[in-house]
Amino acid sequence: MIRAIELARESAQEGEIPVGAVIVKNNEIIGEGRNMREAKKSALSHAETEAIFAANKTLCDWRLDGCEMYVTLEPCAMCAGAIINSRLSTLIFGAYDLERGCIDSAYNLCSGTLGTPPEIYGGIMEDECREILRNFFEKIRNK
Amino acid sequence: MIRAIELARESAQEGEIPVGAVIVKNNEIIGEGRNMREAKKSALSHAETEAIFAANKTLCDWRLDGCEMYVTLEPCAMCAGAIINSRLSTLIFGAYDLERGCIDSAYNLCSGTLGTPPEIYGGIMEDECREILRNFFEKIRNK
Repeated sequence: MIRAIELARESAQEGEIPVGAVIVKNNEIIGEGRNMREAKKSALSHAETEAIFAANKTLCDWRLDGCEMYVTLEPCAMCAGAIINSRLSTLIFGAYDLERGCIDSAYNLCSGTLGTPPEIYGGIMEDECREILRNFFEKIRNK
Repeated sequence: MIRAIELARESAQEGEIPVGAVIVKNNEIIGEGRNMREAKKSALSHAETEAIFAANKTLCDWRLDGCEMYVTLEPCAMCAGAIINSRLSTLIFGAYDLERGCIDSAYNLCSGTLGTPPEIYGGIMEDECREILRNFFEKIRNK
């Protein structure tokens, strides 16, 4: 999660909503990503999708069973769906997103009816993860 | 929708689950895609995400407001989320996906709480769209 937080901070420095994600298999990082929606001008470019894309490439396989994702913010609908589609085994996320989070907040897409859902651990290093987002939006408001 | 059906047929020929998608702005196609999960070894590579990626590139913008998507199958969670994130204005889909469809079947992610949802028209050219999928899975079973 510490690496995911670093990635989120990089996004903040680039003026992107700060979210970072890391995918681990057998204690090794096989993919990482950070929100790059503005830089890439792509609605698909969230931290989680970037990390899944990288991990798929590393393994030469769209299936990520046996892998864990660490992400600083509760995934949105697109990313929750991508996590289910990629068959990730474990999802560890930091801050809850009460408005748009689709793991435990607005929706619970991983409740089991859509494909193979991952094991879920929410609120891990929550304060640190929330702080990065709070600082980012505070800076924007004070501009 | 006729072009989306053509794209779905191309996917079937390549051994991919046959789904096709087209994005239109001012009566012009600005992005299209078909399911390429196996070819690209990417869990993200659905028809809808491929079409959104292409349309973002065409417009040099992650925002697709004012655009319509035509897709042969009701979008999954990932694609429904991508449609919301990209702010597409209109979604026209063919066959319903009772198990995994996240527009009107398993979930209704476009009900309005997550971002700006599109206007939705489901079941358009439903028989043709369903037939392509049925033929594909029948061939697989008889292999």
